[in-house]
Amino acid sequence: MAIDLDEDTLQFIRAHRVGRLATVARDNKPSVIPICYVFDGERVYSSIDEKPKSVAPEQLKRVRNISANSAVALVVDDYAEDWNELRYVLLVGLASIILPGDEDDEHRKAVQQLRNKYVQYRDMEIDKRPIIRILVTGIKQWAPKKKGDDDAKED
Amino acid sequence: MAIDLDEDTLQFIRAHRVGRLATVARDNKPSVIPICYVFDGERVYSSIDEKPKSVAPEQLKRVRNISANSAVALVVDDYAEDWNELRYVLLVGLASIILPGDEDDEHRKAVQQLRNKYVQYRDMEIDKRPIIRILVTGIKQWAPKKKGDDDAKED
Repeated sequence: MAIDLDEDTLQFIRAHRVGRLATVARDNKPSVIPICYVFDGERVYSSIDEKPKSVAPEQLKRVRNISANSAVALVVDDYAEDWNELRYVLLVGLASIILPGDEDDEHRKAVQQLRNKYVQYRDMEIDKRPIIRILVTGIKQWAPKKKGDDDAKED
Repeated sequence: MAIDLDEDTLQFIRAHRVGRLATVARDNKPSVIPICYVFDGERVYSSIDEKPKSVAPEQLKRVRNISANSAVALVVDDYAEDWNELRYVLLVGLASIILPGDEDDEHRKAVQQLRNKYVQYRDMEIDKRPIIRILVTGIKQWAPKKKGDDDAKED
């Protein structure tokens, strides 16, 4: 695995139900939306048909953005009124679209993971729809500095 | 006001305590982090010293990104296990940094708004630190299509 990931961070990412995905359009302007996802330690998968949609998948801005620029960022975080409890994990990587019936069976396995994590997907035909795959190339995290900590770096 | 904003959407944005801000680096890769913010209907303000920091403000990635590319996006959303209750509002705009003692007194007013919304800021010296100002140029929102709705567009 190319990325440095301890068990606690892995669990933090996997346990959260929603993350926010940033993509960049052809004109270099960013977009950001909430997504449901699974993370296997190397790759993030997110169905682009997770919720009722009224447009074709390839017309979705996130899909058009990924086609133009595969660099994406996903943040998973905790907000709390006690700001000592704040925490976020930022995953950066390269996104692509995978389709049903791919050679490696990757789409089917991703659907399975998504349905394991989200019971909501079990009644939805996500097996027939494209999935965003993010190959994670870097992880950064931040939490408030506590006594005895090394310097926490922040973005 | 250049943007189309109804009272319900305004309240949705203002009532939330955390949003996620996407910026784009010089190499056109995105970043995204949780931020605290206020919104006056036209401009978003966010202190870049909202939490304990260990690096100088100008070294923060979000500040470097804004210097390289002022286009930003901020999402404010609700997640719920009942996916009929999902909702998000996406604000896009142009970011810049404002400093204490500016001619228009904008920094001081922003600090006041931030301290009104977040009691946590009242004991913090955000009046001495830079603030990110986002001039909002567009708002999009999404919620699941309900019976009788027009088509909901999604990113």
